[in-house]
Amino acid sequence: MIERPYLIFLGDVPDALAAKTAYGIVDWRRDWCLGQLRLPGCKADTGLADMSIGEAAAAGARTFIIGAVNPGGRLPEHWVETVVEAIEAGMDVASGLHVRLASFTAIREAAERKGAKLHDARHANQTFSPGTGSKRPGKRLLTVGTDCSVGKKYAALAIDRELSQRGVASQFCATGQTGVMIAGRGIAIDAVVADFISGAAEWLSPATDPANWQIVEGQGSLFHPSFAGVSLGLLHGAQPDAFVICHEPTRKTMRNVEAPIASIDAVIEQTQRLGSLTNPAIRPAGICINTSALEAAAAEDCLAETAERYGLPACDPIRTGVAPIVDHLLAEFR
Amino acid sequence: MIERPYLIFLGDVPDALAAKTAYGIVDWRRDWCLGQLRLPGCKADTGLADMSIGEAAAAGARTFIIGAVNPGGRLPEHWVETVVEAIEAGMDVASGLHVRLASFTAIREAAERKGAKLHDARHANQTFSPGTGSKRPGKRLLTVGTDCSVGKKYAALAIDRELSQRGVASQFCATGQTGVMIAGRGIAIDAVVADFISGAAEWLSPATDPANWQIVEGQGSLFHPSFAGVSLGLLHGAQPDAFVICHEPTRKTMRNVEAPIASIDAVIEQTQRLGSLTNPAIRPAGICINTSALEAAAAEDCLAETAERYGLPACDPIRTGVAPIVDHLLAEFR
Repeated sequence: MIERPYLIFLGDVPDALAAKTAYGIVDWRRDWCLGQLRLPGCKADTGLADMSIGEAAAAGARTFIIGAVNPGGRLPEHWVETVVEAIEAGMDVASGLHVRLASFTAIREAAERKGAKLHDARHANQTFSPGTGSKRPGKRLLTVGTDCSVGKKYAALAIDRELSQRGVASQFCATGQTGVMIAGRGIAIDAVVADFISGAAEWLSPATDPANWQIVEGQGSLFHPSFAGVSLGLLHGAQPDAFVICHEPTRKTMRNVEAPIASIDAVIEQTQRLGSLTNPAIRPAGICINTSALEAAAAEDCLAETAERYGLPACDPIRTGVAPIVDHLLAEFR
Repeated sequence: MIERPYLIFLGDVPDALAAKTAYGIVDWRRDWCLGQLRLPGCKADTGLADMSIGEAAAAGARTFIIGAVNPGGRLPEHWVETVVEAIEAGMDVASGLHVRLASFTAIREAAERKGAKLHDARHANQTFSPGTGSKRPGKRLLTVGTDCSVGKKYAALAIDRELSQRGVASQFCATGQTGVMIAGRGIAIDAVVADFISGAAEWLSPATDPANWQIVEGQGSLFHPSFAGVSLGLLHGAQPDAFVICHEPTRKTMRNVEAPIASIDAVIEQTQRLGSLTNPAIRPAGICINTSALEAAAAEDCLAETAERYGLPACDPIRTGVAPIVDHLLAEFR
């Protein structure tokens, strides 16, 4: 559990993309953010008020969030001083970088001195039990993909928000490091020891009130040769009643491998077949298309054709919102 | 790589079952074993010559193998002195226990002093790349199960031995701690970080001569709700041409969970469907039945009926050997 409110640290990143985590948090959890801290030369701006560490601490900031990402997952040495200053001012620190915060001596020592928590969202420090496969109360939805990085996290966040806005009890269950930073809790499921994938997914979405919806962020794809094992363990552990297929219509091959992208048909059939092991009632509830590469008219056509073809609501979480999927969910999954 | 020859340590285990790893090594790799070391009160006997540490060291023993297993995976405190003595005599140490050897200060310090390697076969200390799914040269066979603990390791070892005895180039690829101890190399695939399951399987069974057979030890079952993710990642990474289904005919429910055991039909269909992602030519090559709970006549009937029903050779690796499966493999997978 990451304590809030947050002070979002952008460092001196060269562009907005390098602060993707920060933007994700601000997009979905603006209420939790007091302000942003930028070093000289920073080229990103989330729109939050700029604050010094002293100002943020005085305003009650509990956690210093490293909102930057980079390909190697490294923490630049010249950021360490600022992280230490935040700890000295009484904040915990959370990072989605690959490197562990405690691997920096100055950060580790400051945290020990002040009793601060260091959250490495990309690492799983908890121990889990193996999954049991036993059915538990509560309703669950999992987002699944025709590939990695097709919008499963945003789809889940959008559905959770839409349910909450309609007064339906709902929680977003984060399974990746950015999701964990956005949700303030969760588990980077691909960092769990293989034996405990489904057990970690069960821990993440425990028994709840029967009318409650847990919206579980999907990972990878059942058709991705690198990550299908993670996707299957998550599917078995989440035991979803409903799944939403996420797709990027202009992509032709799977990310980073030679395999072709899976079809929506294949994903529906495979998810239902494999998911039925732990929830025989599993069925699709909608399709989320990332239409960002399409013009407005083409996007509209794509969504209409997809909805028609599959007999399911089809939305773009960013462009159109997910109201039709939530309508369907509330009408058909009582 | 675990250096050989081995001195097999049985401690003072209360019965043969508590020395399962030792028996496995002696069953399959007797040539690698110089002798056994038993403490007073030991109730197990692998049949190897009893040797002191001094005698084994003088005879050239390179690795002290802890051949005992126990439910908690612990190393009894009163064994530590003997482990240290073996290190002082110049041996490496290998263990399939859950506890890490280096977590005992006396063992860690002795190993540092002598430059001895400590092999914790249950842990994966290497780093891997994500799987690529790209097809690589060489022939591969994977054993798969209708449940956990149905004889996948013994089936793979028996097929490897039969191939080798016929002069066919073949290697057993170990994926569990006992298999690693038997093979002297390999990886406990369920201990790998989830993101790298298929990558670890690719590392374990790399590109080889096109006529060479790698016989990969299976793990779990595609139908086991705790471990199916591991089984799928292993299937995708191993990209087998052939698979052998392993089954225990008297078992009704999956180990440790409430799910029913899978049928042989379902395992064939699912393995072929999911395995085709990384090897479209995947097909079954035989069935291994663990008939140890059956009388001789019933076992014979069971094997004959299974072979007839599926049109595949059916064997018990222990009771009948696997010659018919290897005949089929060599005739049908050229």
